[in-house]
Amino acid sequence: MSSERFRTIWPNEDGETVGIVDQTRLPHRLELATLASLADAAHAIRAMQVRGAPLIGATAAYGLALAMRDDPSDEHLREACERLLATRPTAVNLRWALERMAKALAPIDPARRAAAAFAEAAAVAEEDVAINAAIGDHGLALIEQIAANKTPGEPVNVLTHCNAGWLATVDWGTATAPIYKAQAKGIPVHVWVDETRPRNQGASLTAWELGFHGVDHTVIVDNAGGHVMQHGMVDLCIVGTDRTTASGDVGNKIGTYLKALAAEDNGVPFYVALPSPTIDFSIDDGVAEIPIEQRDGREVSHIAGATAEGEVVEVQLTPADSRVANYAFDVTPARLVSGLITERGVIEASKDAIAAAFPERAGAVAAAAE
Amino acid sequence: MSSERFRTIWPNEDGETVGIVDQTRLPHRLELATLASLADAAHAIRAMQVRGAPLIGATAAYGLALAMRDDPSDEHLREACERLLATRPTAVNLRWALERMAKALAPIDPARRAAAAFAEAAAVAEEDVAINAAIGDHGLALIEQIAANKTPGEPVNVLTHCNAGWLATVDWGTATAPIYKAQAKGIPVHVWVDETRPRNQGASLTAWELGFHGVDHTVIVDNAGGHVMQHGMVDLCIVGTDRTTASGDVGNKIGTYLKALAAEDNGVPFYVALPSPTIDFSIDDGVAEIPIEQRDGREVSHIAGATAEGEVVEVQLTPADSRVANYAFDVTPARLVSGLITERGVIEASKDAIAAAFPERAGAVAAAAE
Repeated sequence: MSSERFRTIWPNEDGETVGIVDQTRLPHRLELATLASLADAAHAIRAMQVRGAPLIGATAAYGLALAMRDDPSDEHLREACERLLATRPTAVNLRWALERMAKALAPIDPARRAAAAFAEAAAVAEEDVAINAAIGDHGLALIEQIAANKTPGEPVNVLTHCNAGWLATVDWGTATAPIYKAQAKGIPVHVWVDETRPRNQGASLTAWELGFHGVDHTVIVDNAGGHVMQHGMVDLCIVGTDRTTASGDVGNKIGTYLKALAAEDNGVPFYVALPSPTIDFSIDDGVAEIPIEQRDGREVSHIAGATAEGEVVEVQLTPADSRVANYAFDVTPARLVSGLITERGVIEASKDAIAAAFPERAGAVAAAAE
Repeated sequence: MSSERFRTIWPNEDGETVGIVDQTRLPHRLELATLASLADAAHAIRAMQVRGAPLIGATAAYGLALAMRDDPSDEHLREACERLLATRPTAVNLRWALERMAKALAPIDPARRAAAAFAEAAAVAEEDVAINAAIGDHGLALIEQIAANKTPGEPVNVLTHCNAGWLATVDWGTATAPIYKAQAKGIPVHVWVDETRPRNQGASLTAWELGFHGVDHTVIVDNAGGHVMQHGMVDLCIVGTDRTTASGDVGNKIGTYLKALAAEDNGVPFYVALPSPTIDFSIDDGVAEIPIEQRDGREVSHIAGATAEGEVVEVQLTPADSRVANYAFDVTPARLVSGLITERGVIEASKDAIAAAFPERAGAVAAAAE
């Protein structure tokens, strides 16, 4: 899991470019791509060659490093931040990573900014790996508790939505970190993988990475989650998040809210794996305040897949003249969340618990607001 | 709407065969098919050339007529019923239509059975049309109430799941009947169409038939229903059902339950359009007692669509070695249902209300059980 060749982003040996896994080709082909410029990095985020909140943050950090290599001026630093920030409106890690980079680079002499930017981007990436490993350890305890109440050998059934796997981060993943940690400890785990329309990140990315690591899993349509929970086939849900408010409202891939409702209705614990950079301490009410990105309707009306000959083609699903809408995220209210699995432990999805676990960040926002 | 050329099934003028719309070709092509034998009818149901509980019932009735034309013996009548009954395990209309046909045909001299069977099948079809027209009138009142509280011209937003449209019936549809009736009365209606994975009956059939009749609609992925309800964009949900218990638990296309949960969480009325032949008076507890058909996993792992050149091809969505599961239906508990729109009016989803509305059927089951 942690050897560099399995990471999703890395500085190339030329010292000038950055390598990524081009996730738009999965699960049919594992292809790598090279980012050589700010434009490449912005395109990679916008076109979802890289996706997942933590990986978007790391890619933005490296994108800024590529920008500084071209032109390390103050003006270009500002421009590059703005351009990267505009690529995806919902992911709070994007803003977090860019603000961190800008703060670190602003006081540095432009002549030394490019090197400093590459070093800071690497630090962002390493911290993400450390955060996710810690999330894995804390989430592992939840899986171990469930396993302890089962017949030995009987698998723990986890349902997940979208891809909050290592492909969404630099390594380990968020929602998948507890699963990989459990696998490493020899605890049998079976994962229900929501396909996650419209972009099918579950069917194409989560299924691929779980298969790659030999984790038992079954792909289901997004509609099936209620049925499998009604029939006792799910022990716990673990999902990721793109932005969680100071009160614990969880912005995540469209459809997450429906699974949280089904979990509550059936007494299934519903956990959110939450790297703390994903917390937006400036807002409380997720439904009212988290902006929901509307993406190209073509993601709904068309879908890509592999033909019997292995060629990846796009086909149209809807009538040619039907309108489509494509809301990319929804918000799960904190009341439906059993707990947040953070790098500092599993905490309640509430304003007090979040502030207590991350006082330095909650306090900073409170101070800025005064 | 009601002219014969828009029906989904009809006796051909040759007096020997039956015509259908081959729904597996929609929305990309409107193709008709001919059923000339029992085997053709069984195949049409199993391969979902025809689908939707009422249309399955009508097709089974005509299938029995085709069987009687070939061999009107008592033995073949029994065999044909068994063969048709095995095509789809969940749809209660299938059993209802076959029992009705068998009861009508058993006392008739085999020499006259084929003609009697065609006449009885036509009666089944006509009754379905009358039932759905009545459902439309009763559901129209619900839409009119909502429209009365809106600014004139502001559309009533209806969310529907799967296809309970005229394509699922002989004419009018069940969930769509109130929509078509509202359109005919000049009430502006906008329909959120769940695409309804895995077979995409919403994106391919509901969107097509609404477009065909000029009803304003927007296709969304199944995941989006919670978000649009959270944001006040849905005035009411209307879905169909494949089998509803005597207590009002609603078996319907997988994912219906998730929409009912979201409707409850957001105070959106959730109605089920319910032709009474879909009520199974022999069972109460839907989650425990309605058998859930598991269909071919290929419906999840693969999807068909039209290429840019207009060719309909099937592509694979999942990794080649990932397991898939394909539960075709789920059960929405009666507590989540605001009301049942039946041919006898809108009634509460409860044992007492259902028995009061359909005393002759509830009573027959009670008598049989004694």
